[in-house]
Amino acid sequence: MFLRLHVLLCSALLVGSIGLAQDAAPVDDWKPAFTNQNGKEYPQVNSEGRVRFRVVAPLATSVSCSFRDSSEFVKDDQGVWTGYTRKLDEGFHYYTINIDGAEVPDPNSKYFFGAMRWGSGVEVPANDKSFYALKNVPHGQMREVLFPSASTKTDRRAFIYTPPGYDGDQKKRYPVLYLQHGWGENEYGWSVQGHAGLILDNLLAEGKAKPFIVVMTYGMTNDVRPGGIGGFDISHFETVLVKELIPYVDSNFRTLIDQPNRAMAGLSMGGMETKMITLRNLDKFSHIGLFSGGSISMEDVNNTEGFKEHVKLVFVSYGSKEVGGGQRPRRGGDPEANTKALQEAGINSHYYVSPETAHEWQTWRRSLHQIAPLLFTASVGVE
Amino acid sequence: MFLRLHVLLCSALLVGSIGLAQDAAPVDDWKPAFTNQNGKEYPQVNSEGRVRFRVVAPLATSVSCSFRDSSEFVKDDQGVWTGYTRKLDEGFHYYTINIDGAEVPDPNSKYFFGAMRWGSGVEVPANDKSFYALKNVPHGQMREVLFPSASTKTDRRAFIYTPPGYDGDQKKRYPVLYLQHGWGENEYGWSVQGHAGLILDNLLAEGKAKPFIVVMTYGMTNDVRPGGIGGFDISHFETVLVKELIPYVDSNFRTLIDQPNRAMAGLSMGGMETKMITLRNLDKFSHIGLFSGGSISMEDVNNTEGFKEHVKLVFVSYGSKEVGGGQRPRRGGDPEANTKALQEAGINSHYYVSPETAHEWQTWRRSLHQIAPLLFTASVGVE
Repeated sequence: MFLRLHVLLCSALLVGSIGLAQDAAPVDDWKPAFTNQNGKEYPQVNSEGRVRFRVVAPLATSVSCSFRDSSEFVKDDQGVWTGYTRKLDEGFHYYTINIDGAEVPDPNSKYFFGAMRWGSGVEVPANDKSFYALKNVPHGQMREVLFPSASTKTDRRAFIYTPPGYDGDQKKRYPVLYLQHGWGENEYGWSVQGHAGLILDNLLAEGKAKPFIVVMTYGMTNDVRPGGIGGFDISHFETVLVKELIPYVDSNFRTLIDQPNRAMAGLSMGGMETKMITLRNLDKFSHIGLFSGGSISMEDVNNTEGFKEHVKLVFVSYGSKEVGGGQRPRRGGDPEANTKALQEAGINSHYYVSPETAHEWQTWRRSLHQIAPLLFTASVGVE
Repeated sequence: MFLRLHVLLCSALLVGSIGLAQDAAPVDDWKPAFTNQNGKEYPQVNSEGRVRFRVVAPLATSVSCSFRDSSEFVKDDQGVWTGYTRKLDEGFHYYTINIDGAEVPDPNSKYFFGAMRWGSGVEVPANDKSFYALKNVPHGQMREVLFPSASTKTDRRAFIYTPPGYDGDQKKRYPVLYLQHGWGENEYGWSVQGHAGLILDNLLAEGKAKPFIVVMTYGMTNDVRPGGIGGFDISHFETVLVKELIPYVDSNFRTLIDQPNRAMAGLSMGGMETKMITLRNLDKFSHIGLFSGGSISMEDVNNTEGFKEHVKLVFVSYGSKEVGGGQRPRRGGDPEANTKALQEAGINSHYYVSPETAHEWQTWRRSLHQIAPLLFTASVGVE
């Protein structure tokens, strides 16, 4: 398990989108990126999915960006450098600017937490961006809470999404999804670049999902440092999540506290955490979602007492560019084959492949959009 | 009013803390700043209130920071630049790093919105930092909501602090403070660098304030751009706040909706907005707080119908370094003299001067800490 997880995480840093650099002049239909700071004209994105940067650095001798295969940055007589990327996949990408050897955030972008740091991100508009767009629909609330954690001797932050209407009918109780970020990310990921709140607001407005609470907290409680998680020990985070956060949520929010109404899902490392924690705590979790983070095999099922009785949903997803050529999904078995094997064994098992995306947020936004309608529907029939 | 406000805002950018640069070698007791990204050793702060920066920029020919009177940055043989500031005031300061002419955020700091951009900030530990420290006390929630705004044709963001226990007793209703940021800042300011939630959590744990809801939204609805607010027209923001946000809050939160239970306060430009909006809407607001943002004179009182009957509290504050030498507080009258005149006229009027601080967040954190115990106490007696 340790080796598998390690490989998964390291390859996450290498897998990127594919495109040919500078094969022709970029299409000249640049527009400011959605992720820019208000009023900033750059970075810009064109219809090919290229991103163009502008950096004012009059005394610099070299400027570049962290997207591989980008154009050379050129300096005009005002000291303004511009350069552009290859065609990028639709969705969200982290990046840095390099000015004379200094790796710095782009002063024009908003900042996001990923790759173990707050830094720049840019959004390449996706054909399906409507599902996470801000619309004039009823909105839930994204609540920042501080919960006591005896095991880590501090009060810890979580973001808790409560669906529209939560503050209304005080008799209504809700199922809960615990939703984890990936390696090098933190508890802000799903609510900021993941747009989890808007995804659920929009699904609920269309009547396509049951309302549920979503809880997001920091999953690297074991103090993983950059460069690997060789000493990864799930027990620290398991303690925070299962022994501290779940009781806090169940006593401070109107939750349904029984096992059929509690789910866990996560992306990449968060998917591995989800698998480890749920399989060790099937008395508490009934729905399992792994986004670009492994799958569940019949061997896992057979080695886990009570799996078939307790698990109401297994959802596994990947970006098409991850399963296309990469080795990662085959660790722990082919996810599609594993899904079929579970289905044949009578387990409610789903497999989703995000079109034309890699190990990035567009895959995971779509995965949340896909899993949400499946959550807590089986348990309704059971009750 | 326009001129006064304009001068107030421009001078806000010039007033800084005072200290002698490089008069002696800095005291060598540097510690990582509280505002650093997790795990980052720099920037560091010493016991004199100096900040030392570290920038890896091997090919650069010049590196500096935006604090005036800082030391020259020197480069070692690894391409690492270091430099330090003069003695800074206690509290929070925005800054930028300059690398070969490029103004960029420091990759080591967390990012805050001020001076019209997301960028770096650094905290110089204050002697009274305990009042906004994270403690093991009951915490309120900081809720991000999206409220419909017909006048601006979008759904707008607000942060809403609900005190500890809000989700408990469903019969209890709460007074509300509308709390505004300053020029060039946004709705994140009070909850992030202002630590408004922790300030109130701690006061409530000590039994020093009545529990109330705090609402924070973006106050520059009139699309003010950098360089001045010559065309400042309060009516746009007044519409969003009074016609859209207040009704949203009153219908979505358990508020006390009568005038005695609604306050407004703000810092700098937010103070001017508070004065303008409250005096035009005394049927809706009873408590007024102006932090480094002017004061209320007897002329204002006499020109505002019903002032004495409707206003239960006037709170005015400044940093001692603002009132010491600056001209700003004298615009609209000396705040201390104005306070006394109002007191003599029988108005519940308070004046607070924050020791050894200027037009910065430490002044405003302390102002919130001072005003909170005064809020909604007069109205209790009235009811």
